[in-house]
Amino acid sequence: MTPENLQPLAHAIRFLSIDAIVRAGEGHQGVPLGMAEIATALFTRHLKYNPADPTWADRDRFVLSNGHGSMLLYTLLYLSGYADLSLDEIKRFRQLGSLCAGHPEIDPAAGIEVTTGPLGQGIANAFGMAVAEANLSARFGTGLVDHHTYAFVGDGCLQEGIGQEMISLAGHLQLGKLILCWDHNRITDDGSTELSISEDVAERFRVAHWHVIEVDGHDIEAVVAAIALAKKDPRPSLIACRTVIGSGLARVQGQRGGHSARLYAEDADAARELLDWPHAPFVVPDETLAAWRDAGQGSLGEHAAWQARLAALPAAERAEFERIQTGDLPQGWRELLQAYKSRAVSEAEAKPGIHASAEINDLLAAILPERIVGCADLEAPTSHKRSLAAFTADNRGGAYVHCGVREHLMGAMANGLAAHGGVIPLAVTYLAFSEYERPAMRMAALMALPVKFVFSHDSIGVGTNGPTHQPVEILASLRAMPNMLLMRPADVVEAAECWEVALEHRSGPCSLVFARQALPLVRHSHVAENRVRRGAYVLTEAEGGPRVVTLLATGSEVALAVEARAQLQAQGVPTAVVSMPCWELFDAQSQAYREAVLGSGTVRIGIEAAVRFGWDQYLGSRGDFVGMAGFGLSGPAEQLFEHFGITPAAIVAAAKRHL
Amino acid sequence: MTPENLQPLAHAIRFLSIDAIVRAGEGHQGVPLGMAEIATALFTRHLKYNPADPTWADRDRFVLSNGHGSMLLYTLLYLSGYADLSLDEIKRFRQLGSLCAGHPEIDPAAGIEVTTGPLGQGIANAFGMAVAEANLSARFGTGLVDHHTYAFVGDGCLQEGIGQEMISLAGHLQLGKLILCWDHNRITDDGSTELSISEDVAERFRVAHWHVIEVDGHDIEAVVAAIALAKKDPRPSLIACRTVIGSGLARVQGQRGGHSARLYAEDADAARELLDWPHAPFVVPDETLAAWRDAGQGSLGEHAAWQARLAALPAAERAEFERIQTGDLPQGWRELLQAYKSRAVSEAEAKPGIHASAEINDLLAAILPERIVGCADLEAPTSHKRSLAAFTADNRGGAYVHCGVREHLMGAMANGLAAHGGVIPLAVTYLAFSEYERPAMRMAALMALPVKFVFSHDSIGVGTNGPTHQPVEILASLRAMPNMLLMRPADVVEAAECWEVALEHRSGPCSLVFARQALPLVRHSHVAENRVRRGAYVLTEAEGGPRVVTLLATGSEVALAVEARAQLQAQGVPTAVVSMPCWELFDAQSQAYREAVLGSGTVRIGIEAAVRFGWDQYLGSRGDFVGMAGFGLSGPAEQLFEHFGITPAAIVAAAKRHL
Repeated sequence: MTPENLQPLAHAIRFLSIDAIVRAGEGHQGVPLGMAEIATALFTRHLKYNPADPTWADRDRFVLSNGHGSMLLYTLLYLSGYADLSLDEIKRFRQLGSLCAGHPEIDPAAGIEVTTGPLGQGIANAFGMAVAEANLSARFGTGLVDHHTYAFVGDGCLQEGIGQEMISLAGHLQLGKLILCWDHNRITDDGSTELSISEDVAERFRVAHWHVIEVDGHDIEAVVAAIALAKKDPRPSLIACRTVIGSGLARVQGQRGGHSARLYAEDADAARELLDWPHAPFVVPDETLAAWRDAGQGSLGEHAAWQARLAALPAAERAEFERIQTGDLPQGWRELLQAYKSRAVSEAEAKPGIHASAEINDLLAAILPERIVGCADLEAPTSHKRSLAAFTADNRGGAYVHCGVREHLMGAMANGLAAHGGVIPLAVTYLAFSEYERPAMRMAALMALPVKFVFSHDSIGVGTNGPTHQPVEILASLRAMPNMLLMRPADVVEAAECWEVALEHRSGPCSLVFARQALPLVRHSHVAENRVRRGAYVLTEAEGGPRVVTLLATGSEVALAVEARAQLQAQGVPTAVVSMPCWELFDAQSQAYREAVLGSGTVRIGIEAAVRFGWDQYLGSRGDFVGMAGFGLSGPAEQLFEHFGITPAAIVAAAKRHL
Repeated sequence: MTPENLQPLAHAIRFLSIDAIVRAGEGHQGVPLGMAEIATALFTRHLKYNPADPTWADRDRFVLSNGHGSMLLYTLLYLSGYADLSLDEIKRFRQLGSLCAGHPEIDPAAGIEVTTGPLGQGIANAFGMAVAEANLSARFGTGLVDHHTYAFVGDGCLQEGIGQEMISLAGHLQLGKLILCWDHNRITDDGSTELSISEDVAERFRVAHWHVIEVDGHDIEAVVAAIALAKKDPRPSLIACRTVIGSGLARVQGQRGGHSARLYAEDADAARELLDWPHAPFVVPDETLAAWRDAGQGSLGEHAAWQARLAALPAAERAEFERIQTGDLPQGWRELLQAYKSRAVSEAEAKPGIHASAEINDLLAAILPERIVGCADLEAPTSHKRSLAAFTADNRGGAYVHCGVREHLMGAMANGLAAHGGVIPLAVTYLAFSEYERPAMRMAALMALPVKFVFSHDSIGVGTNGPTHQPVEILASLRAMPNMLLMRPADVVEAAECWEVALEHRSGPCSLVFARQALPLVRHSHVAENRVRRGAYVLTEAEGGPRVVTLLATGSEVALAVEARAQLQAQGVPTAVVSMPCWELFDAQSQAYREAVLGSGTVRIGIEAAVRFGWDQYLGSRGDFVGMAGFGLSGPAEQLFEHFGITPAAIVAAAKRHL
């Protein structure tokens, strides 16, 4: 039992944070000092968690969206008893290798649900977690899945556009178990929020059908009561907590410097005197620590009851629940893809790449019920809904989220879904609009979350919609991103192989990039082997002598390379075609394999309806490139390929220039 | 004079749009048909424009933010008499080379103010135009600058986060001459807006202190009256126009298909019958066309009066106004930078890169009053405000816009400022947060707008704030973007040279990328020549024999290369250091220059605290790379460089491996 007077517990947060920040020489005191009471209210009286089982599937989720206030999270985890978060780690705040990094970095076993820092991402992740909870609860019942998602949020997150995207869609979907605590301190890095905002931010939530409570954020019992109200209300809740930034530091509190001005030992001393906290740096009085540790045990009963309910389930249901928690795939999924691939070869039908992905998505519907598909208002041209019902305020069992024209939220929602666990998120839009989603894609890569980003309309093949809608640099910019697998299949067969790789790939996100236009088959015989898995492979070897020319292509340009090869072969030039659907996988192959595929000493021509940037690594000293030199144009797709010289004739000419 | 009954004028828009879309085989009829009456009201009764002088500096600006409805704009321009927009062009809608591209593409001489398509960009551009107008009006008086900015906007633009960013800041800044007409048709691509939004969108504007008028969008006189009210109100105005999407097409109007379902000749016939429009395709009755052309002449008096006022100005003031319209720079700007550069050499002070940019910004304040700086809540760490007053609701003469934590809006505002003309926009934030701004940066590149995107905190040199704040892939992803000059100076001298290049560069945007950490001087003697202008150059040639090793580096890593060179030279390996601040400029040099700089046949080591992606084009067959292989970590900067092996010792070792 935690004591009636919780103030010392809040001060423990406050002073550990001050001490760590003074020691580190930098940090953001604004949040931990301003939200110490709010955090105490949540963690001692409401949050369902068990520090001894940090990844308990039905724990409440807690996201610190204002991630610069990371010391708040670290002190909470230490005080409540998460084993990994020791006092020594806190003393090493911001040191290389410390769990207490400048911004929280995802580590569920340590109690850190997601990486936060870039503003707005965390609340959108929390939104995704709430979607996952609602969907899984509908599937498995409230006995197994029934938790809240809490996010702490500052003014910055709510100024970012993604913040409003989240407010709008969470209100629309009436995610009643999503509860935000807003650190309403009226200060950002530049100083007063009056510099850049005039509106009543809480009103934006009300307009979007949220439940809004306004409360003194330094009154612990008031916050406890507000959270209780929020939990009862069927709407998502905003608890607008009036706070004083950097509360307790007389020199800077309530001012711009409260945010992150350098703190000194004298500031800490003054705070100790002001708040009557006569304890040495990093010392938490025994009774306060004990009270915190008691608080950390507050959900033990619920935890045990939940485990008992899980144990009492029929074996199959329990196994299914446990399977989705691990992220393991069910038996039979691979066979489905194999059968599709085999059928594709026998049907030999040219098909828009995105339609192949849609067909695969349909196939997987029955066997992968844990899939949740978000799409940003492009249902018809991407066709990934056909097998799914919509996830709505009334139907939590639906697994297709109409995200509206909100790509950024969609991506961050997918991250939240993946971080929650138990579901496999897809996020679907056009490749050109990945630009809007990219900050979330970077977070997926950084967090190593297995999100499937699905894109259509991948090149000038978009045609008459013109250059705003035609990616030319985006393949390169996504290939430059660490830990992102980018796959661009050449035909239906490769599409199936890409999807197989994507589903297997659990150590990070994938971008699956599909053409809008029909892709003729380039793989004419069925092989069980997944050839995409090595990233690039010889599609057709040279004939009539040792290989002289190697044509390297991806996606829709592989078919052009095949045509060019036929012309070169007819002219007596032994030419191979290499399909390169995934550079990252290819780069991980042995040097011997890579050299054999690329053809050491041959003339190598890279072919892609995109910019050259990045291609040179494969082209060697006798290489050239056929592709785009700048942005596209509005016109029929086939005319654009002609106009920009991405044709078999241009490929042949390029090869012959280097012979 | 336009006639009292304006309905035939609206129908002229409607039927030309239908005819062009039927002929093209695709297009988006929803907007031109749904907004035909609104557009007629604006263009015949309110808009200040002169088709014979499309780039009249004080014209009202009109932005079609829902750019997929491009036929609306093309018909308006044709009907009102813009010479470039002929009926033949309209008949070639979506054909390669037509002015009537799938989405509007910037062409002020033809009446197209900005490229639109990616949703939300246009209204944010319009916001920037309204900022430019307010600032220039404060500077030159309402006799020269006194115009409105109108934007048409659909539901999609207002679902995008950037839409809310704009609503919030425009309300805060009380940009009373910004008027949006919302095509409130309750339909997006997926169908009913009820799929993804529940809130009263107009209320979001009210909360942000906009003036909101609700009106029947098909009642021309009601819209005329609403616009009149909007012009009178000191607040920015939203005219929420209830409309029927695709109005006039019985088969699809008011439905999902009204947005962009394929239209056929029978649809056009049915509409002709329904609306009693007995004219052949592409035929506008003479009296209707005459009325439109009269409307296009409606501002001739204002135009003449404005010209008279300009002519009557004192010569110096007039010259200054005309100078900023052309974008020419004033005399003396280059000398300021030269003097700064010379001083930097003599002072030889290591300085954070961003501080050098801030000092240059201060220097330019007096001589370049047309600069407008936006910054996304990072005033203190970027220091680009010192010489500027804030642009506020009360002080339009201020030239520093506190954008709040709204990077995306900031970028699109800068585009709007540049498209408006008369000002030079800077947009300032951390490089990591360029991800949020990137969709606007892509539009700047596509539109070839001379925006200066200024970034600080350009690598793991950020230090303890950790990987969320440490760019590693972003240099590559911006280099991949066509028409974007990316410059990353090595020291204060190069910073001055980069700024000189940036100010000269008027055919597209620049990204100026500065280190947070102190950069020691690598340029120890003053030369008048701007060495950055060639993109890369030999900073220090090899000594003691022909060059054996070439060290290629950018930014903060040039100093490491200099140290490594000293070690290699001491070991008897003749080594040159090449500084490569701007790849795009280097790639444009002659092959002979490039080979001389890169050192054909030498061992080449690329050095950059970023990923290798893109570097191979310079490394040749005996090359290697010292840099990052993935995301960064939280820790002190100097420890991170050690940890990731970006050190002189590692450079020396890499070079020797290839000797």
